[in-house]
Amino acid sequence: MTYNFSQLYEQMSIEKNSKVSVGLDPNLERIPKFISEKSKIDLPSDIVLNFNKFIIDLVADFVPVVKPQLAYYEKLGWRGYQSYEKTVEYAKSKGLLVIADAKRGDIDSTATAYAEAFLSDRYGGVSAVTVNPYLGKDSIIPFIEQSRQTGKGLFILVKTSNSGSQDIQDIVTSRGNRVRDVVRDWIIEETENSNEKYSNIGAVVGATHPTEMSQLRMSLKKSLFLVPGIGAQGGDIKEIHRVFDENGHGAVINSSRSILYPDSVTVDSTKEEYAEAVLCETIKLNTQINKILLNNGQY
Amino acid sequence: MTYNFSQLYEQMSIEKNSKVSVGLDPNLERIPKFISEKSKIDLPSDIVLNFNKFIIDLVADFVPVVKPQLAYYEKLGWRGYQSYEKTVEYAKSKGLLVIADAKRGDIDSTATAYAEAFLSDRYGGVSAVTVNPYLGKDSIIPFIEQSRQTGKGLFILVKTSNSGSQDIQDIVTSRGNRVRDVVRDWIIEETENSNEKYSNIGAVVGATHPTEMSQLRMSLKKSLFLVPGIGAQGGDIKEIHRVFDENGHGAVINSSRSILYPDSVTVDSTKEEYAEAVLCETIKLNTQINKILLNNGQY
Repeated sequence: MTYNFSQLYEQMSIEKNSKVSVGLDPNLERIPKFISEKSKIDLPSDIVLNFNKFIIDLVADFVPVVKPQLAYYEKLGWRGYQSYEKTVEYAKSKGLLVIADAKRGDIDSTATAYAEAFLSDRYGGVSAVTVNPYLGKDSIIPFIEQSRQTGKGLFILVKTSNSGSQDIQDIVTSRGNRVRDVVRDWIIEETENSNEKYSNIGAVVGATHPTEMSQLRMSLKKSLFLVPGIGAQGGDIKEIHRVFDENGHGAVINSSRSILYPDSVTVDSTKEEYAEAVLCETIKLNTQINKILLNNGQY
Repeated sequence: MTYNFSQLYEQMSIEKNSKVSVGLDPNLERIPKFISEKSKIDLPSDIVLNFNKFIIDLVADFVPVVKPQLAYYEKLGWRGYQSYEKTVEYAKSKGLLVIADAKRGDIDSTATAYAEAFLSDRYGGVSAVTVNPYLGKDSIIPFIEQSRQTGKGLFILVKTSNSGSQDIQDIVTSRGNRVRDVVRDWIIEETENSNEKYSNIGAVVGATHPTEMSQLRMSLKKSLFLVPGIGAQGGDIKEIHRVFDENGHGAVINSSRSILYPDSVTVDSTKEEYAEAVLCETIKLNTQINKILLNNGQY
């Protein structure tokens, strides 16, 4: 097996000195006019693709990962799905890893189809995908098998960044643990015998839950964390050291809206102003995280 | 509001004397050769679309609903997504209701994008969509709001048909209920004040769990059930009365593989043989269900 997602991430995060994933959640209403109004005949899906290319060109030297969120593409129908695939290809051509934020989950035969959709090497295949565990472990196994065959990664939802994550994930069971611990334990079972520093079976852990971030880092020793929730969702950057190991590895910190739509610019800003703001937000986030890691968690 | 999914389903199921949804899970390896080899230049996505049209033409007079499973289309990339949309349009043009089996679920802003993707009136919009509750109630609300605006339906996963459904959904909580009961209670909250016989907020309940089918029917009085698991998955048709109310309403029984790929034919069968087998399976399932409902649950 030549491809190994977690190793690639570690290498690239060292090379670029960045633990950041830029979330590609293109929202037509917030895309600046120098892109959306450049050509009146552009379809929404073209505007989305052009915006993504603009962002990718800016951030490709500074971050190892981008994370397209499928909903924003599906919303635009098959042309949106095509723009998603072109975005993936473009990001890969710029040397970026791509995590498809799809949160898929289904019964075995269907889960196999989803695993092939995202983790095969076909056109549109990505480096890693997010997976929803509500249907049970048999719905996750096809993704794990596909990951073992291809070296691609998966991130299983354990504790998501939204406040509603408490409704199911935090339920205390009759055994005294929580529902999210059951999911965590599947991941431990599948990764504890891994020879790698980090296996390709990771976890989604929201940056909005400091206590859980520490607890999960302690128990999931062989799993990369994909960490959404910094920025627009309110996760405190000062707590982010909790998802890293003692060497400053083991986590991908995602930011979407704060980088795509910086507060300092508007849809009317010029291309130069907008580009500067995006770059500035990206570098600021890199610097904040690196500073915390250098200072062993002291901000 | 003119469109009302649950009312339309009740009307159409009476008109066609059928409670059946035909699942459109096109699997290239099982599509008969008279379709897959008709033209050597057809793309896989064209073959899938042609197979779906063949099935839809056969079943449209006999069932009220078809249910495309998104995974089988996403597996083929954007062209697959386009075939999904063309399938939806074709089914609607034949007077069928369409349930998109997507099992989406995400944080609020993203859930809104998914809700618009599936339940808006744009090209590719469907009659109802399936939704995954693992992210919590705030991930479901955007679908409920979209449903209230458009009259479209949603089916929230409560108890799925796979054996792994026990892993999370059946966990006993410290309060003595189960995780799936928490999801059930959200649905009760959102539907109990509905003036309709059945609201547009439904539940997915697998046909492989007789006890849970009865329990959930008793408590979710205002929700249509979408019931997968009959046929290839092993659900016993004799137990199917459990998901219907005393008047024989309230459930959509899905069958996918048993109708699409009948045991009596192979990929080498002729068009006439295959068509006869598909029709025969469809009518057999209608008849079995109707007989049970007429006999008040006695097979």
